[in-house]
Amino acid sequence: MLITNKKATFSVNVVISNKKGARDPEGETILRDLVNKSGFEKTVKSIRAGKFLRVEVEAFDEEEAKMTVSKMCNELRIFNPAAHKLSVEVGRIAD
Amino acid sequence: MLITNKKATFSVNVVISNKKGARDPEGETILRDLVNKSGFEKTVKSIRAGKFLRVEVEAFDEEEAKMTVSKMCNELRIFNPAAHKLSVEVGRIAD
Repeated sequence: MLITNKKATFSVNVVISNKKGARDPEGETILRDLVNKSGFEKTVKSIRAGKFLRVEVEAFDEEEAKMTVSKMCNELRIFNPAAHKLSVEVGRIAD
Repeated sequence: MLITNKKATFSVNVVISNKKGARDPEGETILRDLVNKSGFEKTVKSIRAGKFLRVEVEAFDEEEAKMTVSKMCNELRIFNPAAHKLSVEVGRIAD
Protein backbone atom coordinates (compact mmCIF):
# COMPACT_ATOMS: atom_id res chain seq x y z
CA MET A 1 0.00 0.00 0.00
CA LEU A 2 1.29 3.42 -0.94
CA ILE A 3 0.73 6.20 1.57
CA THR A 4 0.23 9.41 -0.37
CA ASN A 5 -0.60 11.75 2.52
CA LYS A 6 2.02 14.45 2.91
CA LYS A 7 2.91 16.41 6.03
CA ALA A 8 2.14 20.11 6.07
CA THR A 9 3.34 22.87 8.39
CA PHE A 10 0.85 24.09 10.99
CA SER A 11 1.06 27.17 13.17
CA VAL A 12 0.06 26.29 16.72
CA ASN A 13 -0.64 28.97 19.35
CA VAL A 14 0.21 28.22 22.96
CA VAL A 15 -0.90 30.35 25.90
CA ILE A 16 0.54 29.69 29.35
CA SER A 17 -1.33 31.57 32.06
CA ASN A 18 -1.63 31.48 35.83
CA LYS A 19 -4.38 29.18 37.08
CA LYS A 20 -7.73 30.79 37.71
CA GLY A 21 -7.53 30.99 41.50
CA ALA A 22 -3.92 32.16 41.51
CA ARG A 23 -2.90 35.78 41.71
CA ASP A 24 -1.45 37.46 38.65
CA PRO A 25 0.88 40.28 39.76
CA GLU A 26 1.69 41.35 36.21
CA GLY A 27 -1.92 41.77 35.09
CA GLU A 28 -2.85 43.39 38.40
CA THR A 29 -0.05 45.93 38.04
CA ILE A 30 -1.05 46.88 34.48
CA LEU A 31 -4.62 47.35 35.65
CA ARG A 32 -3.77 49.32 38.80
CA ASP A 33 -0.86 51.46 37.66
CA LEU A 34 -1.72 52.07 34.02
CA VAL A 35 -5.37 51.45 33.20
CA ASN A 36 -6.89 52.82 36.41
CA LYS A 37 -5.09 56.14 35.96
CA SER A 38 -6.11 56.64 32.36
CA GLY A 39 -9.92 56.73 32.13
CA PHE A 40 -10.07 53.25 30.57
CA GLU A 41 -11.16 51.85 33.96
CA LYS A 42 -14.73 52.80 33.02
CA THR A 43 -14.85 49.87 30.61
CA VAL A 44 -11.78 47.70 31.30
CA LYS A 45 -12.57 45.45 34.24
CA SER A 46 -9.78 42.88 34.42
CA ILE A 47 -6.41 42.02 32.89
CA ARG A 48 -4.66 38.65 33.14
CA ALA A 49 -1.15 38.26 31.76
CA GLY A 50 0.43 35.17 30.24
CA LYS A 51 3.12 33.83 27.99
CA PHE A 52 2.49 33.26 24.30
CA LEU A 53 4.34 30.85 22.01
CA ARG A 54 3.80 30.34 18.29
CA VAL A 55 5.08 26.94 17.26
CA GLU A 56 5.54 25.89 13.63
CA VAL A 57 5.15 22.13 13.48
CA GLU A 58 4.98 19.54 10.72
CA ALA A 59 2.02 17.17 10.88
CA PHE A 60 -0.54 15.34 8.75
CA ASP A 61 -3.48 17.28 10.18
CA GLU A 62 -4.50 19.91 12.75
CA GLU A 63 -5.21 17.33 15.41
CA GLU A 64 -1.75 15.80 15.16
CA ALA A 65 -0.13 19.27 15.19
CA LYS A 66 -2.00 20.14 18.39
CA MET A 67 -1.13 16.82 20.03
CA THR A 68 2.58 17.16 19.23
CA VAL A 69 2.76 20.65 20.72
CA SER A 70 0.82 19.68 23.88
CA LYS A 71 3.12 16.69 24.34
CA MET A 72 6.19 18.86 23.82
CA CYS A 73 5.06 21.48 26.37
CA ASN A 74 4.36 18.76 28.94
CA GLU A 75 7.45 16.63 28.40
CA LEU A 76 9.90 19.54 28.23
CA ARG A 77 8.22 21.22 31.22
CA ILE A 78 7.82 24.46 29.32
CA PHE A 79 5.22 25.36 31.94
CA ASN A 80 4.66 24.43 35.57
CA PRO A 81 1.45 22.37 35.81
CA ALA A 82 1.11 23.19 39.53
CA ALA A 83 0.86 26.93 38.87
CA HIS A 84 -0.07 27.39 35.19
CA LYS A 85 -2.66 26.23 32.74
CA LEU A 86 -1.92 25.50 29.12
CA SER A 87 -4.12 26.42 26.17
CA VAL A 88 -3.19 25.05 22.72
CA GLU A 89 -4.95 26.05 19.50
CA VAL A 90 -4.18 25.62 15.83
CA GLY A 91 -3.63 28.77 13.79
CA ARG A 92 -6.28 31.02 15.27
CA ILE A 93 -4.43 34.28 15.73
CA ALA A 94 -3.50 35.77 12.36
CA ASP A 95 0.12 36.48 11.51
CA MET B 1 -36.13 57.72 21.93
CA LEU B 2 -35.31 54.97 24.38
CA ILE B 3 -32.00 53.19 23.88
CA THR B 4 -32.47 49.60 25.00
CA ASN B 5 -29.06 48.23 23.99
CA LYS B 6 -27.11 47.09 27.03
CA LYS B 7 -23.38 46.69 27.42
CA ALA B 8 -21.98 43.19 27.81
CA THR B 9 -18.58 41.99 28.96
CA PHE B 10 -16.23 40.72 26.26
CA SER B 11 -13.02 38.81 26.67
CA VAL B 12 -10.36 40.23 24.36
CA ASN B 13 -7.07 38.43 23.70
CA VAL B 14 -3.96 40.51 23.05
CA VAL B 15 -0.69 39.10 21.76
CA ILE B 16 2.42 41.28 21.74
CA SER B 17 5.25 39.72 19.74
CA ASN B 18 8.53 40.82 18.23
CA LYS B 19 8.22 42.09 14.67
CA LYS B 20 8.81 39.54 11.96
CA GLY B 21 12.31 40.59 10.95
CA ALA B 22 13.47 41.03 14.55
CA ARG B 23 15.29 38.34 16.49
CA ASP B 24 13.48 36.55 19.27
CA PRO B 25 16.03 35.36 21.86
CA GLU B 26 13.42 33.68 24.05
CA GLY B 27 11.90 31.55 21.29
CA GLU B 28 15.35 30.77 19.88
CA THR B 29 16.57 29.57 23.28
CA ILE B 30 13.56 27.29 23.81
CA LEU B 31 14.13 25.80 20.36
CA ARG B 32 17.89 25.39 20.72
CA ASP B 33 18.27 24.34 24.35
CA LEU B 34 15.06 22.39 24.93
CA VAL B 35 13.41 21.22 21.73
CA ASN B 36 16.54 20.39 19.74
CA LYS B 37 17.82 18.09 22.50
CA SER B 38 14.57 16.18 22.89
CA GLY B 39 13.68 14.50 19.58
CA PHE B 40 10.87 17.00 18.91
CA GLU B 41 13.16 18.78 16.41
CA LYS B 42 12.03 16.26 13.79
CA THR B 43 8.66 18.03 13.58
CA VAL B 44 8.98 21.34 15.46
CA LYS B 45 10.60 23.87 13.12
CA SER B 46 10.25 27.25 14.80
CA ILE B 47 9.18 28.89 18.05
CA ARG B 48 8.40 32.59 18.53
CA ALA B 49 7.65 33.90 22.01
CA GLY B 50 5.38 36.75 22.98
CA LYS B 51 3.32 38.32 25.73
CA PHE B 52 -0.34 37.45 26.18
CA LEU B 53 -2.99 39.60 27.86
CA ARG B 54 -6.63 38.70 28.41
CA VAL B 55 -8.67 41.85 28.89
CA GLU B 56 -12.26 41.85 30.16
CA VAL B 57 -13.97 44.90 28.73
CA GLU B 58 -17.52 46.24 28.70
CA ALA B 59 -18.87 47.16 25.27
CA PHE B 60 -22.00 47.09 23.12
CA ASP B 61 -20.50 44.67 20.59
CA GLU B 62 -17.34 42.76 19.65
CA GLU B 63 -16.12 45.52 17.35
CA GLU B 64 -16.30 48.14 20.10
CA ALA B 65 -14.57 45.78 22.57
CA LYS B 66 -11.70 45.25 20.14
CA MET B 67 -11.40 48.97 19.38
CA THR B 68 -11.29 49.90 23.08
CA VAL B 69 -8.52 47.40 23.80
CA SER B 70 -6.44 48.42 20.74
CA LYS B 71 -6.78 52.06 21.75
CA MET B 72 -5.80 51.25 25.35
CA CYS B 73 -2.68 49.30 24.30
CA ASN B 74 -1.59 52.15 22.01
CA GLU B 75 -2.35 55.06 24.32
CA LEU B 76 -0.86 53.48 27.44
CA ARG B 77 2.16 52.26 25.46
CA ILE B 78 1.69 48.72 26.71
CA PHE B 79 3.90 47.69 23.78
CA ASN B 80 6.69 49.37 21.84
CA PRO B 81 5.48 49.94 18.27
CA ALA B 82 9.08 50.21 17.01
CA ALA B 83 9.91 46.67 18.13
CA HIS B 84 6.64 44.80 18.61
CA LYS B 85 3.49 44.03 16.74
CA LEU B 86 0.08 43.86 18.34
CA SER B 87 -2.64 41.33 17.60
CA VAL B 88 -6.09 41.82 19.14
CA GLU B 89 -8.91 39.27 18.92
CA VAL B 90 -12.23 38.86 20.67
CA GLY B 91 -12.70 35.73 22.74
CA ARG B 92 -11.01 33.16 20.56
CA ILE B 93 -8.95 31.21 23.07
CA ALA B 94 -11.19 29.26 25.42
CA ASP B 95 -10.96 29.77 29.16
